[in-house]
Amino acid sequence: MIPKSHPRYRSLVTRERLAGCARSGIVSWEGLTAHGRGEAFDYLLGEKTTESARLAERTAAAMLTSARHPVISVNGNTAALAAQEIAALQKASGAQVEVNLFHRTEERVQQIEDLLRSAGADVFSGEAERLLPLDHDRAWCRREGMYSADVILVPLEDGDRCEALVRMGKTVIAIDLNPLSRTARRATLTIVDELTRALPEISRACHDLTQKDKKHLTESLNNHYLLSEAIREMTERLNHALD
Amino acid sequence: MIPKSHPRYRSLVTRERLAGCARSGIVSWEGLTAHGRGEAFDYLLGEKTTESARLAERTAAAMLTSARHPVISVNGNTAALAAQEIAALQKASGAQVEVNLFHRTEERVQQIEDLLRSAGADVFSGEAERLLPLDHDRAWCRREGMYSADVILVPLEDGDRCEALVRMGKTVIAIDLNPLSRTARRATLTIVDELTRALPEISRACHDLTQKDKKHLTESLNNHYLLSEAIREMTERLNHALD
Repeated sequence: MIPKSHPRYRSLVTRERLAGCARSGIVSWEGLTAHGRGEAFDYLLGEKTTESARLAERTAAAMLTSARHPVISVNGNTAALAAQEIAALQKASGAQVEVNLFHRTEERVQQIEDLLRSAGADVFSGEAERLLPLDHDRAWCRREGMYSADVILVPLEDGDRCEALVRMGKTVIAIDLNPLSRTARRATLTIVDELTRALPEISRACHDLTQKDKKHLTESLNNHYLLSEAIREMTERLNHALD
Repeated sequence: MIPKSHPRYRSLVTRERLAGCARSGIVSWEGLTAHGRGEAFDYLLGEKTTESARLAERTAAAMLTSARHPVISVNGNTAALAAQEIAALQKASGAQVEVNLFHRTEERVQQIEDLLRSAGADVFSGEAERLLPLDHDRAWCRREGMYSADVILVPLEDGDRCEALVRMGKTVIAIDLNPLSRTARRATLTIVDELTRALPEISRACHDLTQKDKKHLTESLNNHYLLSEAIREMTERLNHALD
């Protein structure tokens, strides 16, 4: 048991929740390490949604709701941390929800689909094929799902897969706390924010934005600016850390 | 299997090794997340030993070899990543090696002691008592070990325990990739470097330093400078990341 007096109580409890999902197979053990990397960058952000992240989240809402065939790609960490937020975003945006795993087994796919369904998501789970130009398990997806999508939201993605999707001509929206990652730099739009803060913001914007807002946000997207702003926030925090 | 073509191959393989140690109980699942946090900060350091880290490592060697009763405190992650480097540093410095765990069970202590012994370390393992002023399992240590030490090397420590040791009047040397952590800021001397790079550097310096070097290094210790230098390296990398 973690004592409540521990100064990192909240973060340690989230970690225990992830560890629980690792025990049941939803989260891969490597996924726990990836979560830790995210925590470090979130710490540098001050563990809050910055102004530039909010702009990115509104732009994501504009893109998802204007898409012909939007898809939300879900992996183990995303399902463990934010199954309900994914279900809510699906309702707000009309996007398909599809499970895609780096460490893929049929059993894990099934467990994660069950978790998403019990949180209220309508999961697309036709037969998977190796359709993406990648040399590991992430090549798998569904022909009528992600393969046909025009806009894909990839929370907590790996760089390879993000690159492959962009090369296939898709609009890729990443949620990634590391503004220097290949995912962050290759995505069409990068949201540098923590998952459970980012998803409700996108859902809210899906409801709120007018057609004019959407047009404006999509046309004025400047991902380099969004990444520089995230980096500026982080360096500022680092620079004042010892004050 | 991770394909060799993956750009983060080395980091992913280390993570798999840690996951293997999580399976066997050496590394706690929460330890995997802590490792991820370290990875993020190491990435900002450029995954190399900086000049200021090298100075910190030489100072650590001076302190350990000048101590009356030096102790190296080892947890699960440290044993999993660097059992041999710990054994080598023990030989070079003459320090006691004692296992101390955040998520403590007798079985885990035993497993970690066995791993250290098989790597060649002489592990001090008398009966543990709750001797440190802390409200969780980290309060446990040995009266003739850490409790009596004047200088303690704590790789990958948590902030509470570092603070408690400093309050007990001990000289605490931390190895911590996060220069903003409470551990890093409370320790007498902080080495902002990756464990398997830092330990061999300290061992080398234990062999190389003259008495005069040791006196000079100990007297000129300025931990605020060492931390600012680490932060400067990180902000520099962040600032040039999008060039």
